[in-house]
Amino acid sequence: MVKINDNYLKLKAGYLFPEIARRVTAFAQANPDAPIIRLGIGDVTEPLPLACREAMIAAVHDMGDRNTFKGYGPEQGYEWLREKIAQQDFQARGCEIDASEVFISDGSKCDTGNILDIFGKDNAIAVTDPVYPVYVDTNVMAGHTGTANEKGEYGGLVYLPITAENDFTAQIPEQKVDLIYLCFPNNPTGATASKEHLQAWVNYAKANGSIIFFDAAYEAFITDPNLPHSIYEIEGARDCAIEFRSFSKNAGFTGTRCALTVVPKTLKAKATDGSEVELWKLWNRRQSTKFNGVSYIVQRGAEAVYSPQGQTEVKALVNFYLENAQIIRDRLTEAGLKVYGGINAPYVWVKTPNGLSSWDFFDKLLQTVNVVGTPGSGFGAAGEGYFRISAFNSRTNVEEAMRRITQQFKL
Amino acid sequence: MVKINDNYLKLKAGYLFPEIARRVTAFAQANPDAPIIRLGIGDVTEPLPLACREAMIAAVHDMGDRNTFKGYGPEQGYEWLREKIAQQDFQARGCEIDASEVFISDGSKCDTGNILDIFGKDNAIAVTDPVYPVYVDTNVMAGHTGTANEKGEYGGLVYLPITAENDFTAQIPEQKVDLIYLCFPNNPTGATASKEHLQAWVNYAKANGSIIFFDAAYEAFITDPNLPHSIYEIEGARDCAIEFRSFSKNAGFTGTRCALTVVPKTLKAKATDGSEVELWKLWNRRQSTKFNGVSYIVQRGAEAVYSPQGQTEVKALVNFYLENAQIIRDRLTEAGLKVYGGINAPYVWVKTPNGLSSWDFFDKLLQTVNVVGTPGSGFGAAGEGYFRISAFNSRTNVEEAMRRITQQFKL
Repeated sequence: MVKINDNYLKLKAGYLFPEIARRVTAFAQANPDAPIIRLGIGDVTEPLPLACREAMIAAVHDMGDRNTFKGYGPEQGYEWLREKIAQQDFQARGCEIDASEVFISDGSKCDTGNILDIFGKDNAIAVTDPVYPVYVDTNVMAGHTGTANEKGEYGGLVYLPITAENDFTAQIPEQKVDLIYLCFPNNPTGATASKEHLQAWVNYAKANGSIIFFDAAYEAFITDPNLPHSIYEIEGARDCAIEFRSFSKNAGFTGTRCALTVVPKTLKAKATDGSEVELWKLWNRRQSTKFNGVSYIVQRGAEAVYSPQGQTEVKALVNFYLENAQIIRDRLTEAGLKVYGGINAPYVWVKTPNGLSSWDFFDKLLQTVNVVGTPGSGFGAAGEGYFRISAFNSRTNVEEAMRRITQQFKL
Repeated sequence: MVKINDNYLKLKAGYLFPEIARRVTAFAQANPDAPIIRLGIGDVTEPLPLACREAMIAAVHDMGDRNTFKGYGPEQGYEWLREKIAQQDFQARGCEIDASEVFISDGSKCDTGNILDIFGKDNAIAVTDPVYPVYVDTNVMAGHTGTANEKGEYGGLVYLPITAENDFTAQIPEQKVDLIYLCFPNNPTGATASKEHLQAWVNYAKANGSIIFFDAAYEAFITDPNLPHSIYEIEGARDCAIEFRSFSKNAGFTGTRCALTVVPKTLKAKATDGSEVELWKLWNRRQSTKFNGVSYIVQRGAEAVYSPQGQTEVKALVNFYLENAQIIRDRLTEAGLKVYGGINAPYVWVKTPNGLSSWDFFDKLLQTVNVVGTPGSGFGAAGEGYFRISAFNSRTNVEEAMRRITQQFKL
């Protein structure tokens, strides 16, 4: 009989968000009139920028004429999109990134999982705790871990706590690790990383021959001019970092699907025979063989983000969600809760009151005021006792949720 | 230093189509005025159906209003699309496939590679020869093979020749294999499989606890009412087959990107501890964790394929390419070449004349009449001495290419 990949059996319960969906659905079925407000999953709610919509409609028309029809595009993405990204997201900030180092994809979730394809099985892997669950689960599925303990920690992974105790910075490990996942502005804590902090990581990676997976999905939310948007703003990062970016949270593409991964051509890793291999070549081969590029229509929509009109609209969207975050911070603080994040990030990270566990707080909030958030412990053991509130919603819903919490929720 | 996945180093040269692109580019640079006609890669050329375009434009408008805006969709695809596929592609043909067994994706290339994620490392794998190179290369990358010999055959794979000698049927192997890739109508040979042939495969798979990966990307080209469109038309296939389908070749979605994979809930495989595990659950977990669904806009376009107008337009597109295939068959036969396929399939499989190798014939055709095809040996050792001509092009180009071959090409 055919054999399965046994590593899947090590995965604990469901992926976090399906589990939340399950509990919310059960509650909604039992309470069909409950006016539930969802501040759980980090999903945008506001319309796509007009610039993007106009570009996509023009692209659909291109598909209707055999002279402008597009069949298979380059697996790496169209040159006109890669060029604009390289120029406006990277070169304009002083990062030496060439268009050929930018790979367009249909999502950062896919990319952060798929990137493991090109690496060997015996690398030591570090993740922050709490962490975006996909980093961990994809390593479990790839056979890079042991089984999980009762706190949900997998054997073989190095967990780097980011909590109030260390000011939400990911501390440089004492031991040697090979692959390091960093996400700043951070999901789920909303913490940010200074240039000095990232420089310490780059120095560590260069000294240890490690590679940093830098998830910059939330860079658009940075308003502090001193904070870096890209790991490549850090000296030496071209030799030790891969960066993931997405159009999901800046331009609202969660349902439209477009993202990108930067693999510098200067990045190398070792084969078993001791030779050094360019990772760009491996990723290019991976994408050419297992991927067929992003929809032409969607790529035209992403390109429009870089037009003057697109930039203005994206800025307005980001500001809108940042104002939501500020409202959440203010109201929860008034309600006597201790909050973190939500300033250069769309997530507010709340300390649960009275020693409540994260899931107990989740259930209590859902049942008493019908507000859905995300239990901190779902992001890792060190997230226990915390709770994530997302700023991605309408102003009306955010204000109503905060009104209910401040007026009806008994701490 | 970080270790790479050494299996990538086993891959021979480039993936076939990039290699063709390289040779054509070199020729075009040396001969800038050569009027090249490309009948190589199987890429469509005709406009997208109006029904699909209208649906996508309406979907873009949905994205402009917060009441109809769509954020993250289900990773498995929207219910309204899965239902139509289950009903019209499967239930209407007597196949017991439920919507929950249909997973929408952005391409069959992705799916046929990604499906290996859920299987163990020690399955015996069989592919036809010639074969769509992605099946082989993704197994090499996943570490399921040894190195390649001078003919390009990888150690550890079982190759099942499909040639004129066995009437282009994939012969049931004598030994036991676990995973079997079958593609009918076949890429590259254009051969088809009768119900009896597929029944023999299903019987073999059930007797041996094997699983068939059935690639039905070209099913829309079947005009013979006696040929099966789906493996699930065969008794017992729900217990031993996964089917891949695509909107690329019927509705011209090669640049728009939408496909689907069917994983019946009755399908099981074995864990190391001997327990039997539902493959549906593993694939569902894989897609939930490593994928974020297909663009809402594109899924609306795919849904329109199932409208009466969409069905009429798709039929017209398919007929157009089938007429091209008939023209290619007729002209090449007149020119004294021996041809196969091209009747219920968009590919014509040509025996190279005078014992020419596939790549020599490729170079000769490119250099003398500026026509690009695909060397059969690029699809596997048993493809040596054959050549694939694709019917995906405009009528003008097909007729001009055939005119050049019949009038100017000296055999």
